[in-house]
Formats: sequence, C-alpha cells, structure tokens
Amino acid sequence: MIIKYYFCRLKYHLFEKMGANTIGKEFSLTTFGESHGKAIGGIIDGCPASLTMDYDFITKELQRRKPQTEYCTDRKEDDKVIFLSGIENGITLGTPIGFMIENKDIRIADYKDVSRNNHADFTYFEKYGIAASSGGGRASARETAARVVGGSVAKLFLNTYGISINTSIETIGNINYVQHNKEANALLQQVKETNDTIGGKIKCNIKGCPAGLGEPVFDRFSSLLAGAVMSIPSVKTFEFGDGLSPSRRGSEYIGDGLQGGISNGKEIEFLVGFKPVPSFNIKGRHDICQLFRASVIVEAMAALVTADLIKRNFKINKI
Amino acid sequence: MIIKYYFCRLKYHLFEKMGANTIGKEFSLTTFGESHGKAIGGIIDGCPASLTMDYDFITKELQRRKPQTEYCTDRKEDDKVIFLSGIENGITLGTPIGFMIENKDIRIADYKDVSRNNHADFTYFEKYGIAASSGGGRASARETAARVVGGSVAKLFLNTYGISINTSIETIGNINYVQHNKEANALLQQVKETNDTIGGKIKCNIKGCPAGLGEPVFDRFSSLLAGAVMSIPSVKTFEFGDGLSPSRRGSEYIGDGLQGGISNGKEIEFLVGFKPVPSFNIKGRHDICQLFRASVIVEAMAALVTADLIKRNFKINKI
Amino acid sequence: MIIKYYFCRLKYHLFEKMGANTIGKEFSLTTFGESHGKAIGGIIDGCPASLTMDYDFITKELQRRKPQTEYCTDRKEDDKVIFLSGIENGITLGTPIGFMIENKDIRIADYKDVSRNNHADFTYFEKYGIAASSGGGRASARETAARVVGGSVAKLFLNTYGISINTSIETIGNINYVQHNKEANALLQQVKETNDTIGGKIKCNIKGCPAGLGEPVFDRFSSLLAGAVMSIPSVKTFEFGDGLSPSRRGSEYIGDGLQGGISNGKEIEFLVGFKPVPSFNIKGRHDICQLFRASVIVEAMAALVTADLIKRNFKINKI
Amino acid sequence: MIIKYYFCRLKYHLFEKMGANTIGKEFSLTTFGESHGKAIGGIIDGCPASLTMDYDFITKELQRRKPQTEYCTDRKEDDKVIFLSGIENGITLGTPIGFMIENKDIRIADYKDVSRNNHADFTYFEKYGIAASSGGGRASARETAARVVGGSVAKLFLNTYGISINTSIETIGNINYVQHNKEANALLQQVKETNDTIGGKIKCNIKGCPAGLGEPVFDRFSSLLAGAVMSIPSVKTFEFGDGLSPSRRGSEYIGDGLQGGISNGKEIEFLVGFKPVPSFNIKGRHDICQLFRASVIVEAMAALVTADLIKRNFKINKI
Repeated sequence: MIIKYYFCRLKYHLFEKMGANTIGKEFSLTTFGESHGKAIGGIIDGCPASLTMDYDFITKELQRRKPQTEYCTDRKEDDKVIFLSGIENGITLGTPIGFMIENKDIRIADYKDVSRNNHADFTYFEKYGIAASSGGGRASARETAARVVGGSVAKLFLNTYGISINTSIETIGNINYVQHNKEANALLQQVKETNDTIGGKIKCNIKGCPAGLGEPVFDRFSSLLAGAVMSIPSVKTFEFGDGLSPSRRGSEYIGDGLQGGISNGKEIEFLVGFKPVPSFNIKGRHDICQLFRASVIVEAMAALVTADLIKRNFKINKI
Repeated sequence: MIIKYYFCRLKYHLFEKMGANTIGKEFSLTTFGESHGKAIGGIIDGCPASLTMDYDFITKELQRRKPQTEYCTDRKEDDKVIFLSGIENGITLGTPIGFMIENKDIRIADYKDVSRNNHADFTYFEKYGIAASSGGGRASARETAARVVGGSVAKLFLNTYGISINTSIETIGNINYVQHNKEANALLQQVKETNDTIGGKIKCNIKGCPAGLGEPVFDRFSSLLAGAVMSIPSVKTFEFGDGLSPSRRGSEYIGDGLQGGISNGKEIEFLVGFKPVPSFNIKGRHDICQLFRASVIVEAMAALVTADLIKRNFKINKI
Repeated sequence: MIIKYYFCRLKYHLFEKMGANTIGKEFSLTTFGESHGKAIGGIIDGCPASLTMDYDFITKELQRRKPQTEYCTDRKEDDKVIFLSGIENGITLGTPIGFMIENKDIRIADYKDVSRNNHADFTYFEKYGIAASSGGGRASARETAARVVGGSVAKLFLNTYGISINTSIETIGNINYVQHNKEANALLQQVKETNDTIGGKIKCNIKGCPAGLGEPVFDRFSSLLAGAVMSIPSVKTFEFGDGLSPSRRGSEYIGDGLQGGISNGKEIEFLVGFKPVPSFNIKGRHDICQLFRASVIVEAMAALVTADLIKRNFKINKI
Repeated sequence: MIIKYYFCRLKYHLFEKMGANTIGKEFSLTTFGESHGKAIGGIIDGCPASLTMDYDFITKELQRRKPQTEYCTDRKEDDKVIFLSGIENGITLGTPIGFMIENKDIRIADYKDVSRNNHADFTYFEKYGIAASSGGGRASARETAARVVGGSVAKLFLNTYGISINTSIETIGNINYVQHNKEANALLQQVKETNDTIGGKIKCNIKGCPAGLGEPVFDRFSSLLAGAVMSIPSVKTFEFGDGLSPSRRGSEYIGDGLQGGISNGKEIEFLVGFKPVPSFNIKGRHDICQLFRASVIVEAMAALVTADLIKRNFKINKI
C-alpha cells in the first residue's frame, strides 16, 4: 500500500456551494430568489394530478406573512404568486408546478449604511465571497414566501386526506399567550416602546394524520419535522409534544402522536421557539415580534413534511 | 383535458416501505440490523483515504453505550465491531467502510409475554404487517450501536481538522445536574426505588468548528443537527444554544455559533431532551435514566452531521 | 413472527408520481413546464458565485434548437430566457438561478384531431389519468429548452476550467455524414419527398477534461453520461468511445478517456443514436431529421454531467 | 456588490471522494468491499416485508459469475453469501438486508509485479493517492458479486409481480452468436490460442413488465437502465430495442416497450456491449471473453432498476 496524501487542517477555508435548496423526496419544493432580486419562486415536484387549486386560499396564506398587527413591520409586500406550469383550468396535471412572485417593493437604501449586528451577512461573505447588494441574500425572511406557496399547495393536497394543520402562539417571551394574554400584550407594548424585539414560541397541531407516517431510523416523523422547522430563519428550538417530556417520569408520561418515530393516528403537536429579531437598532423595516407572521411558515414546513410522507407511505386510489 | 382519477381518502392504509436507513450526503452512514437478529452494522461512505483508524477509541465509544452506572440496564452487550472493508493496515482506503457487530446476548423470553405500554410495536405491525419476534425491530436502542461506530469514525476524521464534540448531562427531570448534582442524584435514587424511569437533557458542544458549515436555506447547520438528533429513539426536544433565546429580548440576545444557519467559527452548543423510558413496568432490561448511555449517541449524530458538512463545504489538501 | 400481508400482483396499477425532474447532485437542474402551458423553465442549483453570464451565448445555444435547415420543422419558437434570480449585474451570486421561457406560439389545433401513432400520450394517460390538452406533456421536445439553458450555464462554468464540449453529426440513417456527406444529403432529400423521417447518430467530444472525474462504482463518468443522454426524447443508443469496442480484441483495443469509470485526462468521445421521429404522417410541425436540432441538447446533457462531476470532485480556488 | 473570489483553473487537482456506492431510490443497493479485502457485501434497503428468500436461487445466481466455460478464468471464488439482517425464518422483515461474502482465494502475488496495461489503477492512484495492495480496488469484477446478490433479491421481488429478466449472448466480436454459433465458437478458440481477449454484446429481455414504469423527464426507464448497465466494469455501449432504430426511417420504425420513456406493457429489450478484457498479457487470472460470466450482472442491474421503479410507481396490496 502506498500513501501519497495526508490530512492536514486547511489553512484557507475553501467554500463554494450554496446548494440544498430542495426539501422533500416525493413531494418536494425547490426554491430560488434573493430578497432583493427580480423574483422569488420555486418548483413543487410530486404534487399528484387532479388536485383542484384554490387560488384564494393560497393568496390568503401569503397575506398571513404580511404585517397584520401593530407589532409587525410596515413593509408593503405585494405577494402575488404567478403559476407557470403544472396546472390547467385550475386542476393540477401531476407535472412540476413552477411559480414565481415578483419583488416589487425594494428599498435598498434602508439597508445600506448601517453595520448590522449579528446578521447573516458576515458568514455569507466569508462563505461565498460575494453578496447581493443588500439584505441577507437567500437566508432572509423573503425566501419564506416561496415556502408558503409550497406549503399552501401541500395543505390543499392534505385536505383531500382530511389532514389539517394549525398553529397558535404559545408564549411571548416567557409569558403564556393564551393563559396570560393581557400580560403578554403588555409585554409586547413595552418592547415596542423601548424599540426592542422579543422572541417566543408557536404551537403547531396536525390533525387527521393516519397511522404509519415516518420511517423508523433516520426519517422519523419527528426528525423530519424538526429539520424542516429548524430551517426557518430565527427558529432555535423544537419540542415534540408539549415540550415537558424530558422533565417527566415514565409513570407520568402520557405519550404523543408517535410511536417509534411513526405516527399512530393521534394528533401531532409540537412547539417552535423563535429568537428575537436581532436587528433591533436599525432603520430597516423589521418585526418587533415575528411570531405573528411566522405562524404560516411553520404550518407550511409542517405541511411539506406531512405531504412528503403521505406520498412516501400512502397511495392514491382511483375511485 | 380529461380527468380519470379523483382523490379520496384511502379506506385501507397501504404501507410498504422501511427505507431511509441512510444519513448524510458526502459522509454518509447506512445502517442495518434488527435488535434481535444475527448482526447489526452499516456502511460508512465518503470517509477520505489515509485516515488512521484508532480501534481502541472506537471500542471505548461503544462501551459508553453499555451500562456504566447503577441507573442503567444490566443487559450484557458484547459490542465488538468487525470492519469488513475500506481499511488496510489500519489506514482508510477512501472506499466504503463496511462493518458489523454480532448480536450475542438475546433474551427473547423477556420480551414476549408482556403487552408493552406505548412502545413502537403497535405502529410497526400496522405499517409493515410483520414484526421481528421481539423487541422494537429497527427502532430500538440496539440500532444505535451502528450509529456510534459511524460517529466514532466521523470523530476521528473531525479530529484531523481540530474539531471535537463533547456532551454533559444538563438536567435530570427538571433538576440541573451540574448546579444541583446532589438533588439530581437523590431524584435518580428515588426513581429507582419506585421502579420508575425519568427523562432529562444532554448538552452537546462542538468546538473548533470553522466558519462556513451549513447551507442557507434547508440545510442549515442547526436544521441538520436537529433532524439527526431527533432521530435518536426517545429524543423529544432540540434547543440550539442555551435554549433560552425564545424568552429573550433582542437587546438581551447574545448570539450563538451560527449566523443565517451557517457556522461563524464560534463554539456550537445545543440541548437534547429525552423522554423517560416508557416500559417501566415490565421485566425487560431497560434503563431507569437513559441519559448516561445516550450521550455517546448524541455525539455520534453531531459528528456525522459535522463530518458531512466538512465534506460538503471544505476540501482536503495534499501536503 | 406474525405475517399479515402477502404479495400479490396488483389487479389495478396505481400510479401517481411524475417526479424526477432534477438531474445532478452538486450542480443540478430542476425543470418545469408543459409543452403548451404558460412557460417552461427551471432552477440551476449549485452554480458557483462570480461566474460571468454570457447572455448572447445562451441565446445562441437556444437558437440551435430552432429550425436551421430545410429538414427541420417550421414551428416558430421565440425562446427568450428570463433569468429570475441568482445573478446580479451579470455575475452569478452562488444562489439558485431561476429562469423561465414563456410559451408563445401554441397551435393546439394541429394536435387535437389526429390519433397519433406510437406517441407518449397513451402511456401518459394510463399513468396519470389526466393529460394536458395537447402535445406530449412533459416528455416533449419543448421541455428540452430548459435543459439547453441549464447546459449553457454549465458550459460557461466549464469554460473557466478549459473544458469544451462539441458535437457533430456522425450518421444519417446508416450513412456516415462526414465521409459520405453527399449520399447522406441525398438520403435526407429522399426522406423529405416521401413525407418520412429518419434517425441517425451524433458524436460528442469533451475536451480539456482533467483526470479524476467520476466515481468507481455506480457513478462512473460513462454511467452518468449514458443516463443523462438517454433521457433526451428519441435517444435509443449510447456508445462510449467509437462504439466499436465490443467487436474488438484486447490486442486491438486502444482505450478511451476513462479508466475504471474515471476520466484519465484524455479526450472523452461518445455516440448518441436517435430513432426517427414517430409522428411522420400527421399535420403537426415536426422534424424530418431531428439530429440538426438535437446536437445542442446532447451537449447540454454532457455539460450538466461534467459540471456536476467537477463540483463533486474538484474544488474552486480563490486567487 | 463586492466580488472577492474569481475562478481559475485549479493548478493541483484535489480529489477526495469515493462515494456513490448506492443505486436506486426506493429499492436500493449500497455495496462495500475491495477485491482483496476481508469481505465484500452490501445493504438492500426498501425490499418489502413478507418476501420468501430462495437461497438456492441466490447461490445459483452467484455461481453464474464463476468460470463456467473454457473461456473463463480459473480463479476459484467461493461466493457464499451470509445474510446478516432483514430476514427471519427465510421471510423478509421489510428492514434493510445486510449481507456479506468473505474473500477467501486471494492470490496477491499474481497482481503485484506486472505493470498492467490500461487498467484502472492509474486513475485510482491519481484520484485517491492510495491504493489497495493489489487489484483494481472498488472498480473490479469482484465488487459485482454484491450486485448479483442485490439483483437476485430484486428478481425474487419481481417474480411476485410476474416479471422475469433474461439474457442471451448476442455477438462475440462482430459475429452473431445465435445465427452463426459455429463461427463464433471458432473465433473464441482462436482468441484463446493467441492469448488474446475479445468483446461482444449481451441481449437482455424484461418480460411481464406492467405499463407505467419510469418518469417522463430524467428518470426514463431507458435512462435508468442505461446508467445502471453502463456502471458494470467493461461495458461501453447500451442500445435500447434492437439497436437499429438510429438507422431506420419513421415508416420502418416498429417501436419498443417504451413510450415517452415509460413502459407500455410490451416486452423490454436492450443490448449491452462489453469491451475486451484489457489485461490479456499478464499472469493474473482473467477472462478471455467475459460475456459468459457477465450475463448475470447485466440481469442484476436490470432487476435492480425495475424493482426500484416498481417500488416508485406501483403499490403493494394486502390480500
């Protein structure tokens, strides 16, 4: 045996790849688009034929990403999705669904002059040696609009199986938003007055899920959900079930919608924790508390994972 | 356009696939083996040539999965790994590394007669219509030995880059194991005396990680870590950083080792929460608190993800 | 062990998926679009940052797909590609490159009334139970425009490595187009006069390829080229080298640009055989001999495969 | 926009990866093993539960790889496959099937001292900087034994669907083996006497294939078959149908078992061309004409592709 190479720590880190813009195996979404480029969009591959598109629903889902309360940024995004393929007369053809959303309201000036604190720009520049003229490039909230479109189509598909996905805000900071709503709103008001931002948690429920979704080793339902949800910008924690199981005893443990990583037919529930928006001190249009807008993105990721597993584990019957 | 098929909810769920036994793209591990079959094992694909195998290290890693304290099961597992390919004279060849661990200590009787509470068997039978004669089939703790072998080789690879991965127990139940060690041990003793089990959290640190690991959209470092770690049996929560970011304000937020999902060169830290072992009331040999044995599995999954990203984002130089 | 399911041949074939619209692992192309829908297009994922786009080159490549000689269909396709993302000021950003080409010249009437012979429509309807109002859906020559865009970008990338890809027509029917050009043209004329069509072979050369492209087992360079090229509609044969090696003795064998499936630095050469266009007897606008238009598609597939292997096996240096 | 990196041709080629040891998406085979290491083997992932293993059949398939005629090498390979997982009482469990074949008859001396002509060793060393002590490493005929095991299991699976795969020798050199058998055998004898080797073509037929296998764009049935078959060492040509379609006119074209890349229910037929074995002049034990032993490998690759498409496009029913 002849050894010619040896390992050494690289003196210069060489990076070149910004791939991995696809999620899902049999119901997949590939996205494109910078936050301040011409358009964002994507391709949904694996959506079955004969599904009726509900464009109003998709538009409403996109609107949920827009400012809804006084705690959201006032950037006006006209998120009108244009479907380019895969649909004829409002019915899916089974072919890939290409779509795009044009970027219209681009205020680059807001972003240019301030050295932002802790944003993704530093690592981007280190990694790619090039950066779009402003904004966080691909790792921006803007990219998530394409996820919402993919998630909406996934929801329409899941609806035909009787599966629904919903979210609610669980905590603002460390105040329970349901049980102590008044306190939570006071906290939000205080954060706003101090030009600060705050994190929190969203609860997501998947109802109507049949038993059998997920694979027992690396593609457990919980594993795929965690990976998908953690890919949302600002998400830092994922807790399956009520999040309390690590503190419980076996005799107290009730169980959740999974056994061995595979759905058992019961309701699925998980919590998603968002860090506070980092850029609190600059003039850019950012959210004080992004939970209000982020709910639909959490649902989208959950819908994409569930639709993918339905395609992988279930079969579509003729009638 | 002619529509011939329509969607309907499936009356009978048809499942057939138990795939997804591979993790990683460029440094990947594929595992095989039932908990009570002839052997478990796997293939490590993508490990570079010229890496020196440290068999003692791998053996020690496997021993960490064995009972170490009085709070672990007393099942005697002789986990001797046999490498079948990819190594010559203790040096990797760059070819796939096949390995196996024979199953020796199989006490099927322990498992047969008791209807276990909340275990994976129900969903397995529903999904595959067939089950191994005992145990949880693939979704068992036994399968994780193959992960530890893969993780050990990944660690040896990462060491050549100066990257180290370590864990510590963070909480037993809801008691901090470091700050209140005495209380935590008292809790463990009480749980043991009541024939109960208890969950807890493990902290994992990745040191020496270069800036630039991860992709900005779906394959963020945090996303891949979450997906990998959540695939460990009994893991229910994943918290990046100290787990407190959702409760913080922007002005209090310190940041962690990631920016935009990509490592920034700082230390990576995350918490992994385990539910209590469910089968507390049967005669099978199970752990009272699985954190002690699970640490090495958490490290293995972190090492596999990090090695994969090193392969995807870094390049190996000749000297 | 309990057996609940048994295998049986399916009485009703259940198909649902039209996936696999992606080619490549590290330099990948995902395409969308029906031949007679709103637009076709795709996403190029993995193209490195800092590459200069040559729009004139891309336009010229697309024009090569259009009728150039009297033996091609006279359908007027205005293939103007619109890049939606991944490029700023003519320089790639390293982010996914979304693009589309609007479908303008759609004459559905031509296709509607004739029961076409041996076309893809039958299998499509069987498989998806739904069909676009005309044309061959996804398996049409129209879809290949997106491949040409992807291939053009791949060529620009390969050019930075000194790699060039070229084609020439090798045979028309069974007449060598270079050695017996006059006869070949007479054959074409005769085929045209009899309202018939004819097949033939294209030769493709990859020059400047470094040693080391390809993997030794399933992803041999020849294997990936064959798979990519055979995915072009109407392609039926793939011959690596001069196509004569199966008839040679070992003592006569000269070798080609591969050893063990991996490039050795010599020129790569292969032949691609097209069947005659099947729909000779209908009014639709089809080609008498598609080789003239198909050359650029063969080059595109070769470029996509080579670019993918460059990304998988080579590393991009800063200067 | 700031540009920091530029492209340049790499002065030093950096290779490190020998991945891609997996074929198939839903019925996949991952292989390991060097020609002269401890064992070769693999993991079959995605084989459904409840399939009866026919060990005699698998053994016979492996024997077909051994010397059968006077034109094959006399190396004695005792290919006894040991199944490690995924099977209980001769019935598959649906879990990954791990298997291995120990390497017993290793005569390294035969290979050591001769500088072989045109073998894979040169590119291997260039690429990996390390080589196993002898033989062609992974790109050897030995590795194909693992493919035969995977193919045998795939055949057993396909048999339950009424699908059978068979091969016959089509040509030796350029002599048709069926129509001119006497001449072909005379040619073989002459080649043997001159210590030479010779190439040829194998015909493969897939019978009983249902309509609907394959995807219309990149994963056409013909495309996947070509890619899989071209990954067999020494294969240089792939011709779908009878190989004559490129020389035909549209009016003469009969069609084959595919339409738009998808099976139409008719028989599938293709030709596979092997170059002559290159190392004719050395003492190693090699074949004069490898077609006799290679047939079973061609069938194995066809079976793996077909089984994968059955899993992707068909569903398994309970009865």
